[in-house]
Amino acid sequence: MDYMEEIRSLKSQLNFKEALEIPKSFRNVVLAGMGGSGVAGRIFQEIYDKKPVTFIDSYEIPSFVDSGTVFIAISYSGNTEETVSATEKALKKGATILGVSSGGRLSEIIPNLILVPKGLQPRSAIGYLTLPLLRGFGLSNEEDITESVKHIEGIDSSASEFEKIANQLNSTKSIPVVFGTPPFRTVAYRWKTQFNENSKILAYSNYFPELNHNDTIPLRDTYRREEFSFFALTSHQTSERIRQRVRITSKLCGLDIKEISGEGNSVLSNLFTLIFKGDLISYYLAKYRGIDPREVSIIEALKSELSDIDK
Amino acid sequence: MDYMEEIRSLKSQLNFKEALEIPKSFRNVVLAGMGGSGVAGRIFQEIYDKKPVTFIDSYEIPSFVDSGTVFIAISYSGNTEETVSATEKALKKGATILGVSSGGRLSEIIPNLILVPKGLQPRSAIGYLTLPLLRGFGLSNEEDITESVKHIEGIDSSASEFEKIANQLNSTKSIPVVFGTPPFRTVAYRWKTQFNENSKILAYSNYFPELNHNDTIPLRDTYRREEFSFFALTSHQTSERIRQRVRITSKLCGLDIKEISGEGNSVLSNLFTLIFKGDLISYYLAKYRGIDPREVSIIEALKSELSDIDK
Repeated sequence: MDYMEEIRSLKSQLNFKEALEIPKSFRNVVLAGMGGSGVAGRIFQEIYDKKPVTFIDSYEIPSFVDSGTVFIAISYSGNTEETVSATEKALKKGATILGVSSGGRLSEIIPNLILVPKGLQPRSAIGYLTLPLLRGFGLSNEEDITESVKHIEGIDSSASEFEKIANQLNSTKSIPVVFGTPPFRTVAYRWKTQFNENSKILAYSNYFPELNHNDTIPLRDTYRREEFSFFALTSHQTSERIRQRVRITSKLCGLDIKEISGEGNSVLSNLFTLIFKGDLISYYLAKYRGIDPREVSIIEALKSELSDIDK
Repeated sequence: MDYMEEIRSLKSQLNFKEALEIPKSFRNVVLAGMGGSGVAGRIFQEIYDKKPVTFIDSYEIPSFVDSGTVFIAISYSGNTEETVSATEKALKKGATILGVSSGGRLSEIIPNLILVPKGLQPRSAIGYLTLPLLRGFGLSNEEDITESVKHIEGIDSSASEFEKIANQLNSTKSIPVVFGTPPFRTVAYRWKTQFNENSKILAYSNYFPELNHNDTIPLRDTYRREEFSFFALTSHQTSERIRQRVRITSKLCGLDIKEISGEGNSVLSNLFTLIFKGDLISYYLAKYRGIDPREVSIIEALKSELSDIDK
């Protein structure tokens, strides 16, 4: 599949019908995932608030994990060493273990695993990785999915707007800094990681209102400011107070913050349209740079060096 | 007090004896805090793992907050609007409400609040804000405090090493990127925020192993790489696998990552010595830039514009 087709497959991924089977009674949720797969867990952590959700992005698990814990491992390959290590530890603690992967080691050790289609880059599988969580915990319905798909199609047919942003980043060699807003702080992180992986450029993210306590302080006095481009991701769900903060920050710092909005009324539609817009910009930026957006050979080289040490 | 004296007061702050009174039985912990005060909560979240800990850095609280929740508000001024808003909501949910502040609105609405000395910049009060949490949950003892103080004194007397790093950042106009390692990922964020607030420069942070899934991918191909300086914060607690990752990342990316280590054997000593080293570098960088490290008038201007809207 052409990489642009992978990105566009988001809308068909949203119709993936599998849902994690969540036990009727549990005390807390622990999610484990790294990089592109981890983003699915971070998104869930941000929008589910009926029980405490702990997100893990390393090898260890917290000592509170027990039979009252729903432990969910997310790894597209199923072989991410940090996630496999955490899962093996959770298995010994009597937690309810669930998982989402396209195969790999996780599919061998988790009986209750949702298998998603193979063949994509993990970061392109964001729909497959997120939907089973949202469906399992009752956070998505068919109406919202239909709305999301409609808006993604609309963005796809007006993609030149995002190509233009990519062109500008490329011609100024700008480092993107992406500001999220609740409840989509994670989407800013997703944009950052897509710039890193697809466009092969450094990129950073933070979110309102936290960034008003640090990132915005140096903006009048810092060196190299003109080498950065600032984006703010907003949505139908952004509170009026946060909107005020975006406006005032822009004014006080004399900063040109480019605002990108989610589309539709539902959380789901805003979430996935914001993700899709970032995917497009990072893809076009790779094209302008003459770089293969798919290639991430340095991750493979790192894994191979790590496994050589183990031998 | 001279600002350098504020930074140096860390070692006396560690002897602050107050401890939060934690109920014998509870199901989860929710911490609320922004910016420099929030860092104390983030540090606690990273090293306490006996119960789920949710960290909030905005106005809202999760719906699971109830009488089984220990809710802890941290704000040096006691007036941070996000933290006050979250606390007012938690009060209505029957949670056990605790707090740490030097006064302000929080001291009026939280009977069980630990009052810390006034007169510092919030970010300089990191010892006062962190210790009552660590002591309350049994995460600090006198031996570790003594060890920490001894090592902080040692660093203080060899501060020219950190002055030199600041000088180099200033002369190259480098943007620092600080990589944390578990269990001190938060300290990398602390360094970032100190560069922002004290030195008035843009700065970014991430942590191992997560950053191997995104930040390190563009390092061979990105534009503007030579304009960034990379640091890795390690410690006695850094696992061998993470150490391997730091080494391999440096090699594969052809990257000069400056490693800064915590000192001593305890978690506490490594935590506070790493914090202190970052404080010194960000302070000296302000001096080299001819900038007042204390001044953060843009935060005041933002608060004033926000409150004008409310009138």
